[in-house]
Formats: sequence, structure tokens, C-alpha cells
Amino acid sequence: MYGAVIHAPGDVRYEERPEPTIIEPTDAVIRVVAACVCGSDLWRYRGISPVPNPTPIGHEYCGVVESVGEAVTTVKPGDFVVGGFNPCDNTCAACRKGATANCLNAAHYEGCQAEKLRVPLADGTLVATPEMPTDDLIPSILALSDVMCTGWHAAVSAGVGPGKSVAVVGDGAVGLCAVLAAVQLGAQKVIAMSRHESRQKAATAFGATHIVAERGDEGIAAIQALTDGIGADCVLECVGTEDARLQASGAVRVGGSIGLVGVPHGDLPVEQFFWKNIGIKGGPANCRAYLPHLLELVLNRTINPGIVFDLELPLSEIAEAYAAMDERRAIKSLVRPNAYAKAVSQFG
Amino acid sequence: MYGAVIHAPGDVRYEERPEPTIIEPTDAVIRVVAACVCGSDLWRYRGISPVPNPTPIGHEYCGVVESVGEAVTTVKPGDFVVGGFNPCDNTCAACRKGATANCLNAAHYEGCQAEKLRVPLADGTLVATPEMPTDDLIPSILALSDVMCTGWHAAVSAGVGPGKSVAVVGDGAVGLCAVLAAVQLGAQKVIAMSRHESRQKAATAFGATHIVAERGDEGIAAIQALTDGIGADCVLECVGTEDARLQASGAVRVGGSIGLVGVPHGDLPVEQFFWKNIGIKGGPANCRAYLPHLLELVLNRTINPGIVFDLELPLSEIAEAYAAMDERRAIKSLVRPNAYAKAVSQFG
Repeated sequence: MYGAVIHAPGDVRYEERPEPTIIEPTDAVIRVVAACVCGSDLWRYRGISPVPNPTPIGHEYCGVVESVGEAVTTVKPGDFVVGGFNPCDNTCAACRKGATANCLNAAHYEGCQAEKLRVPLADGTLVATPEMPTDDLIPSILALSDVMCTGWHAAVSAGVGPGKSVAVVGDGAVGLCAVLAAVQLGAQKVIAMSRHESRQKAATAFGATHIVAERGDEGIAAIQALTDGIGADCVLECVGTEDARLQASGAVRVGGSIGLVGVPHGDLPVEQFFWKNIGIKGGPANCRAYLPHLLELVLNRTINPGIVFDLELPLSEIAEAYAAMDERRAIKSLVRPNAYAKAVSQFG
Repeated sequence: MYGAVIHAPGDVRYEERPEPTIIEPTDAVIRVVAACVCGSDLWRYRGISPVPNPTPIGHEYCGVVESVGEAVTTVKPGDFVVGGFNPCDNTCAACRKGATANCLNAAHYEGCQAEKLRVPLADGTLVATPEMPTDDLIPSILALSDVMCTGWHAAVSAGVGPGKSVAVVGDGAVGLCAVLAAVQLGAQKVIAMSRHESRQKAATAFGATHIVAERGDEGIAAIQALTDGIGADCVLECVGTEDARLQASGAVRVGGSIGLVGVPHGDLPVEQFFWKNIGIKGGPANCRAYLPHLLELVLNRTINPGIVFDLELPLSEIAEAYAAMDERRAIKSLVRPNAYAKAVSQFG
């Protein structure tokens, strides 16, 4: 089968890879219907993280189950499934608390930008749709594999709920999904910080009540003007840079909370946060804990996070899918293996 | 009138001070019925914080209103009142969000360990009891001025609620009150970390379900053994030292939260917390926001935080009140000015 392999910064290739097989009795093998490129995949593409050897890449997917190990009981061949970027058993003490991102038996994928994929801990990781979804739902289901769950996690981590004012730092796919999450969680005011017209439109489509195009001190002043002069109850930091963290710290009110899903670097000035009673919480998203609810919202067409994909290509053009995101010509690239047609005709 | 004045580390004197008067129309002057010594007062007593000049000291009190400024409408002479350690207007945008510790017009006291006290922003700061309380309730009402609200704040900041497992680091007055708060907020399991028998007894009286006497790695292992091997949902850090923060970080589960009310120093390893999805929130307590509910719980005898006072002295013996806490002969010292008798006979 074919899949994406990163060889070096800037060098992602579509090439033949070994056919995945059931290794553990808890595995499933799926035909990938759609996969996508993550902002965090770009770390290696841009040379920020090292690429010591050619490595299969990608951690977002949805697809159709082809085979399952003998211990798998909740999904079967022919099921359409989606799983989070972080496989988990969904039964350990951490998972039972909803902390599925920190599953005590966490596993990982070997490159989801591929025609087929071995999914470890299939019972824990995968959620099946009741029936084969129509094609127009595929992007929104795929978005649940990472960005929508991650945006949701930012909102949950910051305690977003009815009546809250929320500011979202970052207008990438995760930031836009965080806007959608805040709206769905009942926030009264959802302020998207964005200076790109196409992303402002997506934020508005997701229910943002206000757009702030300014950054830095001007951005903070604009947030304060919308929040009785004190800042937002909850700020969702969906970037992971020092600038974004400063923006978030300035935009949150005393006693408020920052939900953090961009990977932070360096130390936090905890004493400064303490005197302002500012909380901070976040990390990798608890996809499995959120998936059943979010999948239901997608299938009943309450939410459509799939609009974050503004470029769709065949998997064979994976190199261009990366280049377009790297050069900011696309917010997020979706790729479809040819196998999809096969899967649907076989099982659909 | 007489009150406590700190002259230098180890040197707190009972001496004559100017009679407080109404300065702003929003002021009240009260006769102090009871005051107490705070762990944070010991910073200057121990020379950790500087004492540049002789300074009136103390920020915890309850008492009877003697006079009010012309703008004061919610309390009147003769009312028995308690206020938090941080005066606030209770009307600004921050206070309206419940963030009364970070009131935009925050004021301060000039030494509450005294016979009389000027309370700024009296309408915002003070809460009156419906009638003159009986003498046995005084310690518990006084505890609302700081330690009980601070323990409550730790619990609220960590998201304590029904069904949660909670570990409390610190067995001083605040830690003990945090145990009481966690129990009142519905926690299923409340683990007090203490190796002092008298404090273990107080924690048990407050409803702690478990006591862990070990510290360091052994303490963390003991907490994990009580929490399915993963740590507590919420950890309340009520000390403020590096050791306590390490203890809290080790005792909290992945995806859990630390409530912080001990003043932190230095930076926080935010990336380490991020990968474990550990949240941290806290700061000075929102006393005014919590006071009405907590005062009701005291007056209807649901809670009795006053048992944290294990030493009671006349205000004139304030030097001994400090020495006993400094030398760990007392958890917390309560002092009563002679004026109390006068107040009760005059208004009670």
C-alpha cells in the first residue's frame, strides 16, 4: 500500500509502505477514507523538530474497518470509524476519569496519511457511526480526529459554559474549532482574534459574536472594550508561541482562566498569575472522551467543523498538501486515498 | 485606643495608636470583638519580609459597627459584622464576576489587631449577622475573615465538587479549612496530609476521609494508593513553599487540577504540566463573594472553622500570640480586645 513518508524537512513523499496487519489481538486495520495534515506535522516539515530517519507521518484519519483482532468487540469489518490522534484503551483509571489523552496504556499510530492503517487499542480508540455517512459529512467527521476535539478541549479546560465571555487566540483550524466549541458550550460572547478575512468568515460561520483584528496591546485593549474593561472570562490559546501566551495573559480577566492547547515552551510566571487569580489548564485533547458527543453533533448536522479544510487533494499529492499549509495557502489540507471508492462500494 | 504594632522582626508591641475615624463617606469604624494572627503576618515577624518602620499589623477581624460614613447604606451602628482581609467595593466589573479579591478599587486596612478599626468600602466589604451572635460563634465568624475563605478558595479554584477525590497539602489553619471546604463542596474522598496528631484530629473533625502522614515520594505513593494509582482529581496547595508545590504536582492525577493559595515563588514548569493536562489556579481569596454563604453555614452551625484557633489571649498579650505561632506552639492565635465586653453591653 501507499502512504506519506517524511524524509527530511520539506521532503514528504508518497511511497510504497508495508501493508499494515493485525499484530495485537486488540488491533484493527482500517482502509483510510480521509486523512489530513496537522499544524504539528509542520514542525518536522519546517525543521523545527528533527527527522532522523524516513518516517511515516500523520495522526488524523477516518475510515472503514477491514479486519479486527480477536479481542476486539465494539467495531467490526465494514464499520465506518473515526479515532482520536492519541489511541487509548478507554478503560484504565485515567480514561475512566475522562483523561483519555493520558491513558495509562497509551499507544500510537504509524503514519495515518496512508491507504491503510493499523489502529491499536481499537475498542478504546475507535467510535463507529450508526451507518455509512454521506460523502459531505466526511470532512467534519475527519475534523473530530484532532482539531475539533482540540478546540473543544481548550474550551473545556478553560471552563467555558453558559453566560461566559470567551476570547480565542489563534485563527488556524484549532482556533476556529475552539470558536465553534465555545458557541456550542453556551458562551454568551465569543471573540475570535483574526486578521485574515477568510478565517474571520469561518469564525463568524461558527458563531463568533465578535472579531478582533488587532494584535498585541491594541488587541488586548479591543478585548477589554468588549468585556466591561476587564478582559474575557476564558481565553483559549490555540497557537503555542510566546506571543500567543502573552496575548492570552493580557486578554483574560482577573479570576479568569486560560485554556491551553498550543504546546507551550519555557516557564510560566506563576506568581504574576497568582496575584491576578488567573488559572491555566490544558494539554493534548481527550479525544475519546469527547468523540461520542461531537460525532452525534456532526451526524445530526448541528456542527460542521469540516469547513476548516480549504484544500482537498488525492493522497498521492501529499507533498503539495504540506507545501500549501507551509506557505499558508491553505488553513488545513484534506487528502483522500483512492481506496475510499473501493471501501464504499464494498461496504456502503 | 490600643493595638498591635510591629517594630522589627520578633518585636510586636501592644501600644497606643490614634483613634480611627471616618475619612471617606464609604468608611465604617468598628469596635473589634476578635482578631487573629495570620501565617502571612509571620513573614515580617520572622524577617522574611522587611519591616522598614513601626507598622500597625493584622488583617482579620470581626466586630460591632460604631459609626458609618454618610454614603454607607447596608450596615449601621450596632450591627455585628465580618469582612474579608481584602476590602472591595463589590460593585465593580471584577467584583460582579465574583473576583472580589481583585476588585478594581481594592483598599486595605491599617492594622486589624486593635481595639477599633476603620473599614474602607464598608458597603462592599462588610457582611452583617441578622442578630448579635452568641459568644461561642465568634471564633468561627472570625475564621471567615481569612482562613476559611482561603481554604474555600483553594477548593473552588481546583474545581472541587461532588464525587471528586481531593488531597490537601498543608495542615495549618488554611489547610484544615480547605479540608472542611472540600467536604462541604461534596467531595467523595478528602485526604489530609498531616503528621501532627492534633491537626490530624482537626482534619478528621472537619470530615477528612483519610489522613496521610508521609511526605515526599512516600506521601505521593500513599495518595496514589488511595486514588486508583493515579492521584487525586484536585489537590489544594495551602503552604506556598517549593516543597509543597512539588508535593502537589506529584499528588494530582493526569487531567487534574491544583488549587493554589500559598503564595508561590519562582516559575512553573508549564510544559511538564501541559503534557499531563494538569491545571493550576488560585490566588488571594474572593472573601466577599464567599462570605454570605459561609456566614450562613456558621450561623446555622453546619461548619465550625473556629476550631482552628487553639490559643486565645487578650489583645494586650499580642506579643505572646505571635511567639506561640512562630514557635509552633499554636496553629492560630485569637485575640480579644477588652472593648468586646463594652460592645456587647452597649448593643447586644
